[in-house]
Amino acid sequence: MKFTLQHKDPSSHARAGVIETGHGKIETPIFMPVGTAGTVKAVHQRELKDDIKAQIILGNTYHLYLRPGIDVLEQAGGLHKFNGWDKPILTDSGGYQVFSLANQRKITEEGAIFKSHIDGSKHLFSPERVMDIERTIGADIMMAFDECTPYPCEEKYAWKSMHMTHRWLDRCIERFDNTPDKYGYRQTLFPIVQGSVYPELRKQSAEYIASKNREGNAIGGLSVGEPAEMMYEMTEMVCGILPADKPRYLMGVGTPVNILECIALGIDMFDCVMPTRNARHGLIFTRNGIINIKNEKWKNDFSPLDEESSCFADQQYSKAYLRHLVHCEEILAAQIASIHNLHFYLWLVGEARKRIIDGTFASWKNEMVQKLGQRL
Amino acid sequence: MKFTLQHKDPSSHARAGVIETGHGKIETPIFMPVGTAGTVKAVHQRELKDDIKAQIILGNTYHLYLRPGIDVLEQAGGLHKFNGWDKPILTDSGGYQVFSLANQRKITEEGAIFKSHIDGSKHLFSPERVMDIERTIGADIMMAFDECTPYPCEEKYAWKSMHMTHRWLDRCIERFDNTPDKYGYRQTLFPIVQGSVYPELRKQSAEYIASKNREGNAIGGLSVGEPAEMMYEMTEMVCGILPADKPRYLMGVGTPVNILECIALGIDMFDCVMPTRNARHGLIFTRNGIINIKNEKWKNDFSPLDEESSCFADQQYSKAYLRHLVHCEEILAAQIASIHNLHFYLWLVGEARKRIIDGTFASWKNEMVQKLGQRL
Repeated sequence: MKFTLQHKDPSSHARAGVIETGHGKIETPIFMPVGTAGTVKAVHQRELKDDIKAQIILGNTYHLYLRPGIDVLEQAGGLHKFNGWDKPILTDSGGYQVFSLANQRKITEEGAIFKSHIDGSKHLFSPERVMDIERTIGADIMMAFDECTPYPCEEKYAWKSMHMTHRWLDRCIERFDNTPDKYGYRQTLFPIVQGSVYPELRKQSAEYIASKNREGNAIGGLSVGEPAEMMYEMTEMVCGILPADKPRYLMGVGTPVNILECIALGIDMFDCVMPTRNARHGLIFTRNGIINIKNEKWKNDFSPLDEESSCFADQQYSKAYLRHLVHCEEILAAQIASIHNLHFYLWLVGEARKRIIDGTFASWKNEMVQKLGQRL
Repeated sequence: MKFTLQHKDPSSHARAGVIETGHGKIETPIFMPVGTAGTVKAVHQRELKDDIKAQIILGNTYHLYLRPGIDVLEQAGGLHKFNGWDKPILTDSGGYQVFSLANQRKITEEGAIFKSHIDGSKHLFSPERVMDIERTIGADIMMAFDECTPYPCEEKYAWKSMHMTHRWLDRCIERFDNTPDKYGYRQTLFPIVQGSVYPELRKQSAEYIASKNREGNAIGGLSVGEPAEMMYEMTEMVCGILPADKPRYLMGVGTPVNILECIALGIDMFDCVMPTRNARHGLIFTRNGIINIKNEKWKNDFSPLDEESSCFADQQYSKAYLRHLVHCEEILAAQIASIHNLHFYLWLVGEARKRIIDGTFASWKNEMVQKLGQRL
């Protein structure tokens, strides 16, 4: 993997760059649609590529490990072959799901024992096992196995957990560096900064992660319920420590406003279920604010879903039609809204990139954050 | 509306023709995907047009009347404008739903009073009201308001019901002929033959319907649980009475085998929820038989969903991937399977048409029906 920093915004820490992987280039800042079980919900792969212009998608290690299972993915020749997505894929480490989804789990120094949310069967995720699984999924970018602490979290627990995450990271690196790329293209490992909302812990963790000198670095344990200001504070501090010549990935963030604010702080990569999950509830993000399409006010609004968008779904379908589909709980509602929201998120980061390159990012960002959070 | 009979199969009653409507041509025999609430479930309009090659879709009057409501459809300028489908639309009359779906209904000579399945509100569908509603939906082809008898059905009830359907038809015609086309393009009215499974009633009804000399005719009250042989017997008899120079539409039919058999009997138009509904349960129709994609045997089958199909969904996605998506209850499963099944149904009727034109229909049909019903 190669990262080239192309432009720096003069008025903020925003950067534009390009990541080169075995499955093509990623222009940063970038938003990565979440494809939990090897599918971005309600969206065809060709729509992701041609309409949404996604450059990289996520897969969730926990879900893919349980279904279809690592044996199936190995026989398929990896997730790219299995789901027909030939651009880059990043996998999380399963840490977040093990801690949030599993109905029972136990964390020890060795790893996490959890019960499947599907059939209750017991599984062990250790740093070594997770590296093997992510290798087999065939991720271009593999995330280290970490503990994602909740919010709020006692400082003592956050300290203890952070140190265990660091020891797990060393084991991940050891395993990763001693196993070959699985399918003939380069795979890379990103470590994750933890430390909850404690500046001193975040500083320690960022320094530790930076010292490992991997090809990219991530910030985890944020966007878990803490106030946005706290998230920005931690992100700013950590960005100041993580090396500038490596991409920085802020995990699980966020709203359109969060994304612009964190681009300004020096983040290059984002992922979040928000555009697709909210789509399934009829929430539509636009450059002028947020539409709850279920509302009565859209009942007779036959204007295109988004006049300012070039996406087929925004031009072909009206607000009134989408409202009708949402009320009828039609599958097409989820399809249209998901394409719209993802297209909007990709437009947003693409526009941010353009503004960084032409030097107008900071003023544009300040203007946009006034509008993006409004309820229309 | 204009129907031109182009070819007749020498060895059966199969025909190839073309229907011209205000929204373009329909080549027959044709299958019409069902778009109950103004959407063919899980399928984008552009996929219907470009990938599935649908030439006409159905809307359900009962559903559209309740949601979004006739006022919304009128303000939109009709269903074509509302949902963005610019090819022909046929609407049923709501009769079938009033009798099968509504949790309570009462039939009188005046019409049917029913309670909405959504909010329990009371509504009257009379022949006149239904004509007005279908005009407002903007259907190119409007179905007469009829009573669809169940199976089994006492002969006495079938006799009484058929005569009421005939009187309702007269009222439909009276209303239809005295109201203008709603949106500037031609609308037409198809009457419906009833009579349950009683040859004498079917004969009487077909003669009555034929005597009305409308631009097309339909056969209702079949595919409601009777044995296939009984359905074929009724269809054959009725096709012998209905005029040859008008399209014949067999409502609610059916499996791929049913469709080929009924094309051989002289049917030109079909609709059925089977390809989309079964798709949502993981049943895949192919020219070699039926696949239950949930089965273990497809777990590691990474071959394309349908090697013999030119459709993007069949080529891009594998059997193993679709099986995985169905097991995970992913929306994309319904999307892929629905596109596949509809594409297959449209391929089937298109191929039948080619065979009718080149004179090989009968032998091809006999070969196909051996395979189409097999479980793979």
